[in-house]
Amino acid sequence: MLTKARILSLLFSCMLFSTSALAAQVYHLRLAESWPPNFPIFGESTKTFKQQVEALSGGRLRITIHAKNKHKAPFGIFDMVRSGQYDMGHSASYYWKGKDPNTLYFTTMPFGMTAPEQYAWFYHGGGMQLMEKVYDKYGLLSFLGGNTGNQMGGWFQKEINSVADLQGLKMRIPGFAGEVLAKLGAKPTNIPAGELYTALERRTIDALEWVGPSLDLRMGFHKIAPYYYTGWHEPATELQFLINRKKFASLPDDLQAILRVAMQSAAHDMYARSYHESAMNWAKIRQEYPQVQIRTFPKPVMDALRAANEQLLAERAAQDPLAKEIIASQQAYLQKVRAWTRISDQAYLNALSE
Amino acid sequence: MLTKARILSLLFSCMLFSTSALAAQVYHLRLAESWPPNFPIFGESTKTFKQQVEALSGGRLRITIHAKNKHKAPFGIFDMVRSGQYDMGHSASYYWKGKDPNTLYFTTMPFGMTAPEQYAWFYHGGGMQLMEKVYDKYGLLSFLGGNTGNQMGGWFQKEINSVADLQGLKMRIPGFAGEVLAKLGAKPTNIPAGELYTALERRTIDALEWVGPSLDLRMGFHKIAPYYYTGWHEPATELQFLINRKKFASLPDDLQAILRVAMQSAAHDMYARSYHESAMNWAKIRQEYPQVQIRTFPKPVMDALRAANEQLLAERAAQDPLAKEIIASQQAYLQKVRAWTRISDQAYLNALSE
Repeated sequence: MLTKARILSLLFSCMLFSTSALAAQVYHLRLAESWPPNFPIFGESTKTFKQQVEALSGGRLRITIHAKNKHKAPFGIFDMVRSGQYDMGHSASYYWKGKDPNTLYFTTMPFGMTAPEQYAWFYHGGGMQLMEKVYDKYGLLSFLGGNTGNQMGGWFQKEINSVADLQGLKMRIPGFAGEVLAKLGAKPTNIPAGELYTALERRTIDALEWVGPSLDLRMGFHKIAPYYYTGWHEPATELQFLINRKKFASLPDDLQAILRVAMQSAAHDMYARSYHESAMNWAKIRQEYPQVQIRTFPKPVMDALRAANEQLLAERAAQDPLAKEIIASQQAYLQKVRAWTRISDQAYLNALSE
Repeated sequence: MLTKARILSLLFSCMLFSTSALAAQVYHLRLAESWPPNFPIFGESTKTFKQQVEALSGGRLRITIHAKNKHKAPFGIFDMVRSGQYDMGHSASYYWKGKDPNTLYFTTMPFGMTAPEQYAWFYHGGGMQLMEKVYDKYGLLSFLGGNTGNQMGGWFQKEINSVADLQGLKMRIPGFAGEVLAKLGAKPTNIPAGELYTALERRTIDALEWVGPSLDLRMGFHKIAPYYYTGWHEPATELQFLINRKKFASLPDDLQAILRVAMQSAAHDMYARSYHESAMNWAKIRQEYPQVQIRTFPKPVMDALRAANEQLLAERAAQDPLAKEIIASQQAYLQKVRAWTRISDQAYLNALSE
C-alpha cells in the first residue's frame, strides 16, 4: 500500500530526476590558438567557431579560447593538445614537420593546388583520410581550419630577372618553400613578425613574404619595398583545427557533429573573409601607393624553383612510404583537377583579360 | 498541511513534467526540391543537409525531402514555400525572375564573379543583405544552396568564329544568358532535359549548354558534338535554399542556428563535390573521347556578348531602384575582387601554364 511517506519519497525522487533532465550536462573545451589575441582573420575564425558551437548546442558545449599571450607556446599547440593540456588547437599542420615530416602536406604545397582544387581533394579526393592516417598515431584529429587564399610571393627590394638573382638573396621565407629557395642559392631566414619591417627597410633582408594584401597592409611593407611578386610557394594555405581524440570521443554524438560542422563552417568563412579582405586591401594599396609594382618571376626562375621543389619531394617520397602515398595522391589529383581549372575558371578569367 | 491526496497530486504533476522534459519536442520540416529523385550533386546536397540537421539536433529536427516526382512542380517551389505548402525548398533564385525580376541576381551573372569571388560578396560584401531585401516581401528567407562551379559555354556542332556565326544559331540556353544571345541574333530555345540529346544529334538545335563535365558526361553530348566551349554565361551558379520565414521564426533558437549552418555546410560541400566531379569526368572524356575539342569564343564575340549583357543590365537598372542597387553592388565588388584574382590565382595559374 502507498503510505504518505512512500508517496513523499517518490515525489522527491521525481523532482531530483526532472531537475537533472532539465539541466542538461554542460561540456567545456579549451582551445589554444597560435595567434596573438584579436589577430585579424585567423583569430576571427576561432571566434566564429566558438559562437557557432555555443549557438548550435544551445549552450551545452562551451569553448574557451586562449591566444598565444596566455599559453606562450604558439608552436607548442601540437604537444599541448596531444597531452590533454588543451582539448583543441587552431594552428597550421606544416608547423609540425619537425615532429612528423608528413604533417607538411596538409596546409599547402609549392606549385600545388589552389583553394577550390584543394577543398575538392580534401573532401572528395582522399585528402582527409590521408591526414587522419598521419595524425592518428598521436591521438589527434585534424580538421580544416580556414584558408588564406593564394599567398603572394612577397615584397622585394630588387627585381628577380634570372635564377642568378636568387644567389645570396636574403629572404624571410620559412618552411618548405625556404628549403626550395635555398637549393637555388638563396639565404632563407626566419625573423619575428615585429622585426620584419625594420629588417626590410634597413636591407638586413632583401625580401620577405608574409601572406597577401589581407594581412600585409597592416604590416606596411608597401611603403618600403617597390616590388610585390605573385605567388608560387603557398597557393592555398589552409589552417588547422586539432582535437584530442580521446576528448572528442568522450562527447555525445550530437556535440561531436556540432564540433565538426562548426569547424567546417569557420574554415569556409575564413576563406571568404580572406578573399574579401585581400580584395579590399589590394584596392587600397593600389589607390594610395600606385608606385607598388606587381611582378611575376620569369619562366626560367619558376622552372628552376619547380625543379628544386620536385627534387625535394622525390627525396621525401624515397624515405617514407606514407610520404610517397601522400605526394602521389596530391600529384595525381592535381593533374586531373588542374586540367579542369584550365578550361573553367582560368579560361574564363583569361578570356576577360585579353 | 500536505495531505496524502495533495502529495499524490504533486507526484503526478512532477511525473507529467519530467516526461515532457525528457521527450524533447520533435519538429518536422518538409522540403521540396526542383530536381528528380537521386539527382547527382544537386540532390546530394539536400541529403547532406538532412543528415546534418538530424545529427546536429540529436533527432529533434527532422527533414522530409520531396523530389520533383512527388510534388510535380519543379518551378513551383517559390509559391509552395511562400504559401506554406512546403516549409523549405531547394532550387535556384534565377528561376523566379518571372515572379520578381530582382531574384535574378543571386545565382550567377554572365561575365560575373567566380565562385570564390561570389562567396566573398555574399558573406562579406553585402550580397546576403541584398538577397534578404528581395525575398523579404514574400515572407521568404533565401540562403546559399551549393555551387556548380564555372559552367561550360556548351556543346556546339559548329565553330563560332565571328559574331555573324551567332545569327540564327539555335541553342538551348535558358534564362538571362538566352536574352543576351538573342540580342546578337541567336535563337535561344528551352527543351526538356530528356529531349536534348536527340535534338542536338538530329540538328534540331545547333548547340546547347547544360552544366559542365560534372553533369554533362551522363548526358552523352560528347559523343555527338565536337566542340566544347568554355564559359561566359554562368561563372558560378549558386543554388538556393528557400525557407518560409514564419515557420523558421517558430523554431527554437538552437534549431534555427542548426538550419543555417547545415545549409551553409551543404552548399560548400556541393561546390567541392562539383569541382571534384568535373575534374574526374573531364579526365574521363579526354581519355575516352580525345576528339572533343575545347574552344573559347574569340575576343570579338566575347566583346559583343559582354556589350549586350551590359545593355540589358542598364535597362533593368533604369527600371527599378532595387535592381540598380544590386547591379551597382555587384559591379563595384567585381572590379575590386577581380583585381585581386588577377594577381593571385590567375597569375599563379598562368605562370604555370606558360
